[in-house]
Amino acid sequence: LVRKMPGKVTPEVIEELRKIVGDQNILTDKASLSLYSKGAVEWVAAMPDVVVFPENTEQVSKIVRLAYEREIPVIPRGGGSSVTGAVVAIKGGIIIDFRRMNKIIVDIDNGYVIAEPGATILEVNNELKKYGFFFPPDPASERIATVGGALAENSGGMRCAKYGLMKDWVLKLEVVLADGTVTTFGGATYKERAGFNLVGLIIGSEGTLAIITKAWLKIAPIPEATAIIAGFFNDLRSAGKTIFEIRRRGIDPLILEYADKEGIAAANKIKKTSYPEVDGGMVLVGVGGPAKAIDDLAERVVNIMKEFGAYQVYRPKTVAEREEILDIRRIAFTAPGQFYPGFIDMDIVVPLSKIEEALAIVDQVRKKYNVYIAIAGHAGDGNLHPNIGVDPANKDEWERGHKAARELMEAAIKLGGSFTAEHGVGKTREEIFVKQLEERGQLPMLRLMREIKKIFDPKNILNPGKFALEG
Amino acid sequence: LVRKMPGKVTPEVIEELRKIVGDQNILTDKASLSLYSKGAVEWVAAMPDVVVFPENTEQVSKIVRLAYEREIPVIPRGGGSSVTGAVVAIKGGIIIDFRRMNKIIVDIDNGYVIAEPGATILEVNNELKKYGFFFPPDPASERIATVGGALAENSGGMRCAKYGLMKDWVLKLEVVLADGTVTTFGGATYKERAGFNLVGLIIGSEGTLAIITKAWLKIAPIPEATAIIAGFFNDLRSAGKTIFEIRRRGIDPLILEYADKEGIAAANKIKKTSYPEVDGGMVLVGVGGPAKAIDDLAERVVNIMKEFGAYQVYRPKTVAEREEILDIRRIAFTAPGQFYPGFIDMDIVVPLSKIEEALAIVDQVRKKYNVYIAIAGHAGDGNLHPNIGVDPANKDEWERGHKAARELMEAAIKLGGSFTAEHGVGKTREEIFVKQLEERGQLPMLRLMREIKKIFDPKNILNPGKFALEG
Repeated sequence: LVRKMPGKVTPEVIEELRKIVGDQNILTDKASLSLYSKGAVEWVAAMPDVVVFPENTEQVSKIVRLAYEREIPVIPRGGGSSVTGAVVAIKGGIIIDFRRMNKIIVDIDNGYVIAEPGATILEVNNELKKYGFFFPPDPASERIATVGGALAENSGGMRCAKYGLMKDWVLKLEVVLADGTVTTFGGATYKERAGFNLVGLIIGSEGTLAIITKAWLKIAPIPEATAIIAGFFNDLRSAGKTIFEIRRRGIDPLILEYADKEGIAAANKIKKTSYPEVDGGMVLVGVGGPAKAIDDLAERVVNIMKEFGAYQVYRPKTVAEREEILDIRRIAFTAPGQFYPGFIDMDIVVPLSKIEEALAIVDQVRKKYNVYIAIAGHAGDGNLHPNIGVDPANKDEWERGHKAARELMEAAIKLGGSFTAEHGVGKTREEIFVKQLEERGQLPMLRLMREIKKIFDPKNILNPGKFALEG
Repeated sequence: LVRKMPGKVTPEVIEELRKIVGDQNILTDKASLSLYSKGAVEWVAAMPDVVVFPENTEQVSKIVRLAYEREIPVIPRGGGSSVTGAVVAIKGGIIIDFRRMNKIIVDIDNGYVIAEPGATILEVNNELKKYGFFFPPDPASERIATVGGALAENSGGMRCAKYGLMKDWVLKLEVVLADGTVTTFGGATYKERAGFNLVGLIIGSEGTLAIITKAWLKIAPIPEATAIIAGFFNDLRSAGKTIFEIRRRGIDPLILEYADKEGIAAANKIKKTSYPEVDGGMVLVGVGGPAKAIDDLAERVVNIMKEFGAYQVYRPKTVAEREEILDIRRIAFTAPGQFYPGFIDMDIVVPLSKIEEALAIVDQVRKKYNVYIAIAGHAGDGNLHPNIGVDPANKDEWERGHKAARELMEAAIKLGGSFTAEHGVGKTREEIFVKQLEERGQLPMLRLMREIKKIFDPKNILNPGKFALEG
């Protein structure tokens, strides 16, 4: 298969773009463009030719139609927090920054919120909070992660253990197709069977099939009361057993999270706290329900933790205490990037019964390659982020880091899981993605994906060169 | 687009099928085949050429490969409860009855159940109940509806108001592709981002893209306690307001159902009960949660019903009393088919804020066309089943029934909803489906669907001639 080289962003194209979005909504100078050369991972970078900030769907449609005619790559961008290079213009082209399209319309009467792609998840929830509702999927990067980006990535978050992923909360999408056509998929009702589930197909396709310009999102009532319980464990075995038994005994937690020893240590260092830096790490459980029952629910969790030998069990009472505990989990994720100039994102997932084993493997890999790893995990989903800190200038450390990453991803596959749970494939995970498909006997899927890509994007202009779609 | 006529089921093909499934697993006599000529709707019928009962995926693969080589239609069939003709071999061919593939493997440790397509939803739940878990989507036909059929149709049910649809509860699928290839989509973990969401694409595609041979289904813990509250209302307005306010005030009910006056009357007649046959019908609410909080929850629902002027509010205490109330809702759905020889299934859905208006429209249509309509509704989703009873032998009544049906579907579309919420398109709803797409500006979707169909099924052998895919 031979593909044409992408078209050129000529001065004439820039001029046409300028007419579409206006002088104030276009960037072409090198300094500005370089800010758009990366996502959240330093080591995947490329310069776009131009960045535009459309203000409405009509402008997006015109931009895409122009790109289609000239065969120029178009890369949609929200908060830019992708850790896989999904937001990088690796073939150059036009980056569409959605920050000016961030309207949020709450419709409690109909049980949904309409959001434009540039609105952040946090902004959506701030609006919903006024009415006692919330949008459950909560990427950790909710302050910067946008609705559009979270949909493109089918993002998860802490609350997914109970509430599922982005794909489970979308009723309808407005999209711009590769040729600039504006259309919608799905319906603004809680059920809709009129056609194939193209909403579900677009979500998680990483901007390679269509560009999302509006989303109708289901909402849920905020639980009357919630409680958080943190258990600190002396060994991985007891922590793993606790995670496992909480789900198994039907607690149905709102969140079920994990931070390992290194993560706790990082939080203590950064926030000057003194939580126990125990070998088994911290298991963090959130429960929600009617006010009358919340203490009982919390008590059940406390008892399970004690039964499996928790070294210490802690139930924060104030908002500040809660946030301090939640920060341990958050810092466990970012620590490698805070302590080291280079950050290798890990997003493995294993079957629920294999969490203990997976935690042990991470510890072995850490020792084997002598690299800094802190583990943050959505343990309730089997999803662990054993992120790796390295200095890219230190060639040896850099290579050890990537070898460790590779070994962790392969171990996850071997355990019956996947190299990715919620961060996707993008540019950095193409090879392991294909390997995983091979090992699982799923290669027909790759063929089908590539053919679907051609239907939606015959000229290969939508976020091209990623997701193993060229081959 | 010219399509070839489907291939012939010759004696040689029958012989090959016999070799694949064995003598005891094939039907070719007219009397037996005629049992497979219909679904749950009498007036869509066609004879298949042969029915086979494979015992495992390998046999399914061989059957489909043979069909692919000879270009013979293949129609997968579970309980046969489709109301849209989706299970009818309208171009002849091979019906695959999955009743011999009904294994269920509960895996509480990993939080899922593996089910073969022939297992019924009820059988799955009976297995899960032993462990304190359940599978939330609950098609009303759960006693006969199979996992395979419910997946093909993306079925809903009473519990969808809270728990969502089939598509929200599937982790992984084993499928046989059109050429007989066996593969899987998705992963057996709670999160998986390795590829496009082909699991979601297959679910709800009505057997037109691939044949499902195994499903990994998420499970949820059974709520500690549940309560059911039935409110009977003197007028539609107060019933509609109650439905609306229960969601709006954040009750998050397990079920939120509706039966109209005719439905209640039918139940009274059939079950010899004496529930009030009031003009506003019955609103049925189920709530679940910790035992300690259940009375409070129920009380909140009772209070809302009273606030909006319920004529009578009733909270059944025993299992028998509960079942009697639930039967009102069930009978409201089936009554037209029980009282009349012909049954026209209605599956409209409207935005949550338009339920009251939709109920009023049904009443107008009933009077205008002088037809028997009983309304059963998943009110919490905006999904109403104003099913119509007619005698197909009475040409005038038959026509009035179909005109009424058409008017109801068009009204739903006009209100911002859809002609189908959970029963799909099949054969009977192709025209209105295309009309809805037109009115909504969604015709690009039809083009994309048809192209996706060609990728998955280039010879058009998988459940052909339905879903408006030929055109």
